[in-house]
Amino acid sequence: MNVVHYTPIGLVHSPFTEISGMPIQPTAAQGVRGSVVLNSEFAAGLRDIEGFSHLILIYHLHLVREFSLSVKPFLDDDEHGIFATRAPKRPNPIGLSVVRLVARNEASLDIENVDILDGTPLLDLKPYVPQFDAPDNVRIGWFGGRLSRIRQARSDDRFG
Amino acid sequence: MNVVHYTPIGLVHSPFTEISGMPIQPTAAQGVRGSVVLNSEFAAGLRDIEGFSHLILIYHLHLVREFSLSVKPFLDDDEHGIFATRAPKRPNPIGLSVVRLVARNEASLDIENVDILDGTPLLDLKPYVPQFDAPDNVRIGWFGGRLSRIRQARSDDRFG
Repeated sequence: MNVVHYTPIGLVHSPFTEISGMPIQPTAAQGVRGSVVLNSEFAAGLRDIEGFSHLILIYHLHLVREFSLSVKPFLDDDEHGIFATRAPKRPNPIGLSVVRLVARNEASLDIENVDILDGTPLLDLKPYVPQFDAPDNVRIGWFGGRLSRIRQARSDDRFG
Repeated sequence: MNVVHYTPIGLVHSPFTEISGMPIQPTAAQGVRGSVVLNSEFAAGLRDIEGFSHLILIYHLHLVREFSLSVKPFLDDDEHGIFATRAPKRPNPIGLSVVRLVARNEASLDIENVDILDGTPLLDLKPYVPQFDAPDNVRIGWFGGRLSRIRQARSDDRFG
Protein backbone atom coordinates (compact mmCIF):
# COMPACT_ATOMS: atom_id res chain seq x y z
CA MET A 1 0.00 0.00 0.00
CA ASN A 2 1.05 3.56 -0.53
CA VAL A 3 3.33 5.00 2.09
CA VAL A 4 1.78 7.88 4.09
CA HIS A 5 3.88 10.94 4.96
CA TYR A 6 3.23 13.22 7.92
CA THR A 7 5.17 16.24 9.15
CA PRO A 8 4.97 16.69 12.93
CA ILE A 9 2.98 19.75 13.99
CA GLY A 10 4.99 20.26 17.18
CA LEU A 11 6.64 18.54 20.13
CA VAL A 12 5.50 17.13 23.46
CA HIS A 13 7.59 18.06 26.49
CA SER A 14 7.56 16.09 29.72
CA PRO A 15 9.78 15.22 32.67
CA PHE A 16 10.60 11.86 31.04
CA THR A 17 13.90 12.00 29.21
CA GLU A 18 14.38 8.24 28.90
CA ILE A 19 12.04 5.29 28.40
CA SER A 20 13.17 3.45 31.50
CA GLY A 21 11.05 4.42 34.51
CA MET A 22 8.19 6.03 32.61
CA PRO A 23 4.59 5.50 33.69
CA ILE A 24 2.71 3.07 31.49
CA GLN A 25 -0.42 5.12 30.75
CA PRO A 26 -1.95 8.49 31.71
CA THR A 27 -3.76 6.61 34.51
CA ALA A 28 -0.39 6.07 36.15
CA ALA A 29 0.83 9.58 35.33
CA GLN A 30 -1.81 11.45 37.35
CA GLY A 31 -0.60 14.96 38.03
CA VAL A 32 2.50 14.73 35.84
CA ARG A 33 2.78 18.04 34.00
CA GLY A 34 4.07 18.59 30.53
CA SER A 35 3.39 20.72 27.50
CA VAL A 36 2.60 20.66 23.82
CA VAL A 37 4.42 23.24 21.74
CA LEU A 38 3.01 23.56 18.25
CA ASN A 39 4.97 25.13 15.44
CA SER A 40 3.84 28.76 15.52
CA GLU A 41 2.29 28.47 12.04
CA PHE A 42 -0.40 26.21 13.57
CA ALA A 43 -1.38 28.44 16.51
CA ALA A 44 -4.59 29.59 14.78
CA GLY A 45 -5.71 25.96 14.72
CA LEU A 46 -6.04 26.05 18.53
CA ARG A 47 -8.82 28.64 18.57
CA ASP A 48 -11.50 27.62 21.14
CA ILE A 49 -9.42 24.70 22.47
CA GLU A 50 -9.68 26.28 25.95
CA GLY A 51 -13.27 25.05 26.24
CA PHE A 52 -12.13 21.44 26.40
CA SER A 53 -10.84 19.77 29.54
CA HIS A 54 -9.16 16.85 27.79
CA LEU A 55 -7.27 16.34 24.54
CA ILE A 56 -6.42 13.27 22.50
CA LEU A 57 -2.76 13.44 21.51
CA ILE A 58 -1.59 11.35 18.55
CA TYR A 59 2.17 11.14 18.32
CA HIS A 60 5.09 9.35 16.72
CA LEU A 61 6.90 6.95 19.02
CA HIS A 62 10.19 8.14 17.65
CA LEU A 63 12.50 5.85 19.61
CA VAL A 64 10.87 2.62 18.46
CA ARG A 65 13.26 0.97 16.02
CA GLU A 66 11.45 -2.24 15.04
CA PHE A 67 8.13 -3.94 15.57
CA SER A 68 7.09 -7.24 17.14
CA LEU A 69 3.77 -8.92 16.35
CA SER A 70 3.83 -10.70 19.72
CA VAL A 71 4.78 -8.93 22.94
CA LYS A 72 4.72 -9.48 26.68
CA PRO A 73 3.27 -6.19 27.98
CA PHE A 74 4.43 -4.52 31.20
CA LEU A 75 1.15 -5.42 32.86
CA ASP A 76 1.11 -9.13 32.10
CA ASP A 77 3.21 -12.26 32.12
CA ASP A 78 1.74 -13.69 28.93
CA GLU A 79 2.37 -12.82 25.31
CA HIS A 80 -0.36 -11.13 23.27
CA GLY A 81 -0.66 -9.92 19.72
CA ILE A 82 0.69 -6.38 19.45
CA PHE A 83 -2.72 -5.03 18.36
CA ALA A 84 -4.29 -6.48 21.53
CA THR A 85 -1.85 -4.37 23.60
CA ARG A 86 -0.84 -0.75 23.98
CA ALA A 87 2.86 -1.60 23.73
CA PRO A 88 4.93 0.71 21.49
CA LYS A 89 6.66 -1.78 19.17
CA ARG A 90 3.84 -1.53 16.61
CA PRO A 91 4.19 -1.83 12.82
CA ASN A 92 3.38 1.90 12.73
CA PRO A 93 4.66 3.29 16.05
CA ILE A 94 1.77 5.67 16.76
CA GLY A 95 1.04 6.65 20.34
CA LEU A 96 -2.28 7.89 21.72
CA SER A 97 -2.87 9.54 25.09
CA VAL A 98 -5.83 11.39 26.57
CA VAL A 99 -4.38 14.22 28.67
CA ARG A 100 -5.91 17.04 30.69
CA LEU A 101 -5.62 20.55 29.27
CA VAL A 102 -4.51 22.99 31.95
CA ALA A 103 -3.87 26.20 30.04
CA ARG A 104 -3.11 27.63 26.62
CA ASN A 105 -0.60 30.32 25.71
CA GLU A 106 -0.57 31.03 21.98
CA ALA A 107 0.87 27.91 20.32
CA SER A 108 1.70 26.23 23.64
CA LEU A 109 -0.53 24.04 25.82
CA ASP A 110 0.13 23.09 29.44
CA ILE A 111 -1.09 19.54 29.97
CA GLU A 112 -1.40 17.08 32.84
CA ASN A 113 -1.37 13.27 33.19
CA VAL A 114 1.44 12.97 30.68
CA ASP A 115 2.91 9.54 29.94
CA ILE A 116 4.90 10.68 26.92
CA LEU A 117 8.65 10.93 26.40
CA ASP A 118 10.15 14.43 26.27
CA GLY A 119 10.74 15.55 22.69
CA THR A 120 8.11 13.30 21.12
CA PRO A 121 6.89 14.54 17.71
CA LEU A 122 3.16 15.36 17.77
CA LEU A 123 1.15 14.40 14.69
CA ASP A 124 -2.34 15.56 15.65
CA LEU A 125 -4.46 16.66 18.56
CA LYS A 126 -8.23 16.41 18.89
CA PRO A 127 -10.73 17.46 21.53
CA TYR A 128 -11.83 14.53 23.68
CA VAL A 129 -15.62 14.15 23.51
CA PRO A 130 -17.00 11.27 25.62
CA GLN A 131 -20.10 11.03 23.44
CA PHE A 132 -17.80 10.05 20.54
CA ASP A 133 -14.91 8.39 22.30
CA ALA A 134 -16.27 6.55 25.34
CA PRO A 135 -18.67 3.69 24.51
CA ASP A 136 -20.64 1.77 27.13
CA ASN A 137 -20.62 -1.96 27.89
CA VAL A 138 -16.91 -2.44 27.40
CA ARG A 139 -14.94 -5.69 27.77
CA ILE A 140 -11.20 -5.26 28.26
CA GLY A 141 -9.82 -8.72 27.48
CA TRP A 142 -6.58 -9.67 29.20
CA PHE A 143 -6.40 -6.26 30.94
CA GLY A 144 -9.14 -7.50 33.29
CA GLY A 145 -7.47 -8.23 36.62
CA ARG A 146 -4.21 -6.68 35.41
CA LEU A 147 -5.01 -3.01 35.85
CA SER A 148 -4.29 -3.11 39.57
CA ARG A 149 -0.64 -3.46 38.56
CA ILE A 150 -0.56 -0.23 36.66
CA ARG A 151 0.41 2.14 39.44
CA GLN A 152 3.41 -0.02 40.30
CA ALA A 153 4.43 -0.88 36.78
CA ARG A 154 7.04 1.28 35.08
CA SER A 155 8.54 1.04 31.68
CA ASP A 156 11.84 -0.74 31.26
CA ASP A 157 14.09 -0.94 28.23
CA ARG A 158 12.32 -3.77 26.47
CA PHE A 159 10.56 -1.50 24.00
CA GLY A 160 13.49 0.79 23.26
CA MET B 1 10.80 18.55 11.66
CA ASN B 2 11.58 15.16 10.19
CA VAL B 3 8.88 13.66 8.02
CA VAL B 4 7.34 10.47 9.41
CA HIS B 5 6.57 7.55 7.07
CA TYR B 6 3.93 4.92 7.73
CA THR B 7 2.82 1.99 5.62
CA PRO B 8 -0.85 1.11 6.09
CA ILE B 9 -1.42 -2.24 7.82
CA GLY B 10 -4.72 -2.89 6.05
CA LEU B 11 -7.98 -1.34 4.89
CA VAL B 12 -11.29 -0.41 6.46
CA HIS B 13 -14.41 -1.45 4.56
CA SER B 14 -17.80 0.16 5.09
CA PRO B 15 -21.04 0.93 3.24
CA PHE B 16 -19.83 4.52 2.65
CA THR B 17 -18.34 4.90 -0.79
CA GLU B 18 -18.44 8.69 -0.89
CA ILE B 19 -17.97 11.42 1.71
CA SER B 20 -21.33 13.04 1.09
CA GLY B 21 -24.02 11.54 3.33
CA MET B 22 -21.68 9.86 5.81
CA PRO B 23 -22.44 9.91 9.54
CA ILE B 24 -20.31 12.36 11.48
CA GLN B 25 -19.08 10.11 14.28
CA PRO B 26 -19.56 6.52 15.52
CA THR B 27 -22.34 7.91 17.75
CA ALA B 28 -24.34 8.60 14.62
CA ALA B 29 -23.31 5.34 12.98
CA GLN B 30 -24.87 3.00 15.55
CA GLY B 31 -25.33 -0.43 14.05
CA VAL B 32 -23.48 0.34 10.80
CA ARG B 33 -21.38 -2.72 9.98
CA GLY B 34 -18.00 -2.75 8.35
CA SER B 35 -14.73 -4.61 8.51
CA VAL B 36 -11.02 -4.22 8.97
CA VAL B 37 -8.89 -6.38 6.70
CA LEU B 38 -5.26 -6.45 7.76
CA ASN B 39 -2.52 -7.52 5.40
CA SER B 40 -2.12 -11.23 6.13
CA GLU B 41 1.45 -10.73 7.38
CA PHE B 42 -0.01 -8.91 10.43
CA ALA B 43 -2.62 -11.53 11.41
CA ALA B 44 -0.47 -12.78 14.31
CA GLY B 45 -0.66 -9.30 15.82
CA LEU B 46 -4.39 -9.83 16.47
CA ARG B 47 -3.89 -12.68 18.95
CA ASP B 48 -6.27 -12.21 21.93
CA ILE B 49 -8.08 -9.28 20.32
CA GLU B 50 -11.35 -11.23 20.70
CA GLY B 51 -11.38 -10.39 24.41
CA PHE B 52 -12.03 -6.72 23.70
CA SER B 53 -15.44 -5.29 22.89
CA HIS B 54 -14.14 -2.04 21.38
CA LEU B 55 -11.16 -1.00 19.28
CA ILE B 56 -9.53 2.34 18.59
CA LEU B 57 -8.90 2.64 14.85
CA ILE B 58 -6.29 5.14 13.67
CA TYR B 59 -6.46 5.73 9.94
CA HIS B 60 -5.34 7.97 7.11
CA LEU B 61 -8.05 10.30 5.78
CA HIS B 62 -6.89 9.56 2.26
CA LEU B 63 -9.30 11.84 0.41
CA VAL B 64 -8.30 15.01 2.26
CA ARG B 65 -6.29 17.13 -0.15
CA GLU B 66 -5.46 20.23 1.90
CA PHE B 67 -5.82 21.54 5.43
CA SER B 68 -7.60 24.53 6.95
CA LEU B 69 -6.65 25.96 10.34
CA SER B 70 -10.16 27.36 10.78
CA VAL B 71 -13.27 25.35 9.94
CA LYS B 72 -17.03 25.49 10.40
CA PRO B 73 -17.84 21.96 11.59
CA PHE B 74 -20.98 20.08 10.54
CA LEU B 75 -22.39 20.46 14.04
CA ASP B 76 -21.98 24.21 14.43
CA ASP B 77 -22.53 27.53 12.68
CA ASP B 78 -19.36 29.14 14.02
CA GLU B 79 -15.76 28.72 12.96
CA HIS B 80 -13.30 27.01 15.29
CA GLY B 81 -9.63 26.15 15.14
CA ILE B 82 -9.18 22.80 13.39
CA PHE B 83 -7.61 21.25 16.53
CA ALA B 84 -10.73 22.18 18.53
CA THR B 85 -12.82 20.12 16.07
CA ARG B 86 -12.94 16.60 14.70
CA ALA B 87 -13.14 17.83 11.12
CA PRO B 88 -10.92 15.99 8.62
CA LYS B 89 -9.03 18.87 6.98
CA ARG B 90 -6.18 18.62 9.49
CA PRO B 91 -2.50 19.37 8.85
CA ASN B 92 -1.94 15.61 9.24
CA PRO B 93 -5.23 14.01 8.13
CA ILE B 94 -5.40 11.29 10.78
CA GLY B 95 -8.78 9.86 11.74
CA LEU B 96 -9.70 8.15 15.00
CA SER B 97 -12.81 6.10 15.71
CA VAL B 98 -13.80 3.82 18.57
CA VAL B 99 -15.75 0.94 17.02
CA ARG B 100 -17.32 -2.21 18.40
CA LEU B 101 -15.60 -5.51 17.62
CA VAL B 102 -18.13 -8.10 16.49
CA ALA B 103 -15.98 -11.01 15.33
CA ARG B 104 -12.53 -11.98 14.12
CA ASN B 105 -11.63 -14.29 11.26
CA GLU B 106 -7.87 -14.60 10.82
CA ALA B 107 -6.68 -11.18 9.60
CA SER B 108 -10.21 -9.80 9.25
CA LEU B 109 -12.36 -8.10 11.90
CA ASP B 110 -16.09 -7.48 11.66
CA ILE B 111 -16.85 -4.14 13.30
CA GLU B 112 -19.90 -2.02 14.13
CA ASN B 113 -20.62 1.70 14.54
CA VAL B 114 -18.44 2.52 11.55
CA ASP B 115 -18.19 6.16 10.42
CA ILE B 116 -15.28 5.54 8.06
CA LEU B 117 -15.13 5.73 4.27
CA ASP B 118 -14.81 2.43 2.39
CA GLY B 119 -11.20 1.75 1.38
CA THR B 120 -9.62 3.90 4.08
CA PRO B 121 -6.00 2.91 4.85
CA LEU B 122 -5.60 1.73 8.45
CA LEU B 123 -2.44 2.80 10.28
CA ASP B 124 -2.92 1.21 13.70
CA LEU B 125 -5.50 -0.39 15.93
CA LYS B 126 -5.47 -0.55 19.69
CA PRO B 127 -7.73 -2.13 22.31
CA TYR B 128 -10.03 0.45 23.91
CA VAL B 129 -9.52 0.46 27.69
CA PRO B 130 -11.77 2.95 29.54
CA GLN B 131 -9.33 3.12 32.44
CA PHE B 132 -6.77 4.63 30.03
CA ASP B 133 -8.97 6.35 27.50
CA ALA B 134 -12.02 7.73 29.33
CA PRO B 135 -11.24 10.40 31.93
CA ASP B 136 -13.83 11.83 34.32
CA ASN B 137 -14.94 15.43 34.77
CA VAL B 138 -14.89 16.33 31.12
CA ARG B 139 -15.77 19.68 29.54
CA ILE B 140 -16.58 19.58 25.83
CA GLY B 141 -16.29 23.22 24.78
CA TRP B 142 -18.42 24.29 21.83
CA PHE B 143 -19.82 20.76 21.43
CA GLY B 144 -21.98 21.44 24.49
CA GLY B 145 -25.51 22.00 23.23
CA ARG B 146 -24.50 20.92 19.72
CA LEU B 147 -24.48 17.15 20.17
CA SER B 148 -28.24 16.93 19.79
CA ARG B 149 -27.66 17.76 16.13
CA ILE B 150 -25.46 14.78 15.51
CA ARG B 151 -28.06 12.22 14.52
CA GLN B 152 -29.44 14.56 11.89
CA ALA B 153 -26.11 15.90 10.66
CA ARG B 154 -24.51 14.20 7.71
CA SER B 155 -21.27 14.94 5.95
CA ASP B 156 -21.37 17.06 2.82
CA ASP B 157 -18.60 17.81 0.36
CA ARG B 158 -16.98 20.64 2.24
CA PHE B 159 -14.14 18.47 3.53
CA GLY B 160 -13.45 16.53 0.34
